[in-house]
Amino acid sequence: MRHTMLQSAVVIGAGLIGTSIAMSLSARGVTVYLTDREPMAALTAAALGAGRAEEPPGPVDLAIIAVPPRDVAATLAEAQRLGMARAYTDVASVKTQTFNALEKLSCDLRTYLGGHPMAGRERSGPLAARADLFEGRVWALVPTDETSEETWHTVRTLVDLCGASPLVMAPRGHDRAVALVSHTPHLVASLMAARLEHATESEVSMAGPGVRDATRIAAGDPRLWGEILAANAHTVADILSELALDLNDVIDSLRELTVMDKAEDDHDTKALIGLLDRGCAGQARLSHKRGAPLGSYVTVSVLVGDQPGELARLFTDVGAAGVNIEDVFIDHAPGQVTGLVEMLVTAEAAEKLTRRLRAPSTIMAR
Amino acid sequence: MRHTMLQSAVVIGAGLIGTSIAMSLSARGVTVYLTDREPMAALTAAALGAGRAEEPPGPVDLAIIAVPPRDVAATLAEAQRLGMARAYTDVASVKTQTFNALEKLSCDLRTYLGGHPMAGRERSGPLAARADLFEGRVWALVPTDETSEETWHTVRTLVDLCGASPLVMAPRGHDRAVALVSHTPHLVASLMAARLEHATESEVSMAGPGVRDATRIAAGDPRLWGEILAANAHTVADILSELALDLNDVIDSLRELTVMDKAEDDHDTKALIGLLDRGCAGQARLSHKRGAPLGSYVTVSVLVGDQPGELARLFTDVGAAGVNIEDVFIDHAPGQVTGLVEMLVTAEAAEKLTRRLRAPSTIMAR
Repeated sequence: MRHTMLQSAVVIGAGLIGTSIAMSLSARGVTVYLTDREPMAALTAAALGAGRAEEPPGPVDLAIIAVPPRDVAATLAEAQRLGMARAYTDVASVKTQTFNALEKLSCDLRTYLGGHPMAGRERSGPLAARADLFEGRVWALVPTDETSEETWHTVRTLVDLCGASPLVMAPRGHDRAVALVSHTPHLVASLMAARLEHATESEVSMAGPGVRDATRIAAGDPRLWGEILAANAHTVADILSELALDLNDVIDSLRELTVMDKAEDDHDTKALIGLLDRGCAGQARLSHKRGAPLGSYVTVSVLVGDQPGELARLFTDVGAAGVNIEDVFIDHAPGQVTGLVEMLVTAEAAEKLTRRLRAPSTIMAR
Repeated sequence: MRHTMLQSAVVIGAGLIGTSIAMSLSARGVTVYLTDREPMAALTAAALGAGRAEEPPGPVDLAIIAVPPRDVAATLAEAQRLGMARAYTDVASVKTQTFNALEKLSCDLRTYLGGHPMAGRERSGPLAARADLFEGRVWALVPTDETSEETWHTVRTLVDLCGASPLVMAPRGHDRAVALVSHTPHLVASLMAARLEHATESEVSMAGPGVRDATRIAAGDPRLWGEILAANAHTVADILSELALDLNDVIDSLRELTVMDKAEDDHDTKALIGLLDRGCAGQARLSHKRGAPLGSYVTVSVLVGDQPGELARLFTDVGAAGVNIEDVFIDHAPGQVTGLVEMLVTAEAAEKLTRRLRAPSTIMAR
């Protein structure tokens, strides 16, 4: 397949995101060059089929700057000075700081279009890369005042080839959004997880899936996240300050509840429930699945044995019923030989499915 | 099967936990009576096969008090006054408050053994109940100074019949543990989720699996959680106060990073990374899977189409390879026709599996 706008590219920075982009482009016939401050990273990415671990022989169609946020502007300035590409983009998760630096460094704003694919993993480095990392994800595009038509087309082609959905944003709007849905949640998960560092074994043994899910993202690379947070420090600090006000109110309410035996509907209980209500409302904003209205999916639960083939039999039955599963979750009991499989399906499918399965199962509205 | 210690039981409170226990005991041949302040709840539970929606005709072997925390002590005192059972337990997620109240109400401490099964769901009420809710879960047992041998045996039989693992704790130790791994994480998730209540559509569209997981538990019933938190207010407030100190340090560091262009290894960045490091360490305490050493499982990823039968074909192949899947996660791209299935399997199984699948797949150490 030929893409007139994007036949050659250089990926500067062979980490998780850069290597994943290189894999995706290479798989679609684009000639990809890979460079990294650490030659081993570029060589590893090349060994994984992401491209060639060498400088491009001449100007390529697109340079993808996949370096940490603080290095984006300087890397762009240098790449433009060398005339490496006809168009430039980056993948950094913060934009305002970079845009300020671009002007100071007198970068050419016509050939640059900021980018940020909303995908990542707890693991980092080229070995964690996947060609499909961006499929169906949102890819934020943040233009400068001068971004040229040609640059737009080239970067849009990149997003298309990676299977992502473009979302155009201004630098500040972008940084506020990621502060809200990515950077602040990360820090909040870290703040909670830090409480568990010195927990006793029996305390840890009481932990269920709730606290595991709530703290999972805290496992991200501290140095990389430290830099991401530093680059969006102002916005994250603002959101955390709002959270701190609520937190102090919650602590006050809990302290008041401790000193007296309160009635069910007193002021402090109400304040506590008010915060929990707001949390429910906020959580509901995220629970839409693929743009479908809430409640249009139901969960079908089936208990299966922990033996090879049990899941196969289940999903064969599901497939035979002509039912598509939107999401599936296996709830495993530690040390236990059975697991509960919860399948999220449409309401019509749920009826078909339970008729078909003829097994002890329950349907619950989600 | 006959269990000499536990042939008849009454469940007082036909909510999620009470009904699930009743289902589990009924399935194992115990005669179960169900009562609830709301007759409809007991009737619903009975209709689900949990037992008989009536008062027991005479003393039963065990009364399971499955009412909200604040009502446990009074319900126990009344049940003992009526001579409902030879032994009594409860399922409340807080114990210190109840134990204090027991003495005030002159309850018989010999026939009572406090209990708390570590299982729950975001949904509540008898319709959400499952007979297997406790399988493989920890079930905390909190004795009084006077709990009799016979009471121990009866309640241990309950835990065994429900498939749970008993963990003996003192009231304060129990309440500290649940504050740490359940109550505080819930409030922290709510505090984060509350920030999203008034997020814009494009902000929400940037949300990925990270923030979803981090806020999922915030969907729990606010009134029930308000009561749970109120009953453990002191301990939760202490943990939140520690968290607030870290939070204020983080905000200070972020504000400092905003006002100047900092070097990579300056004081404020170090403070930020220090907190992220502690979060990693705390998160790692939870990441053991079924008691297995870390790293003994690997993830096999396969891209599948979003069509009925695709998952069936995949899992049929997996079953044919004789491989057992420990956990499975479908990463769905919004508006996208493909999904990435990540299967957690043993390292040996991973090799067998990828040979068998002969499909574009990647293996990554977890």
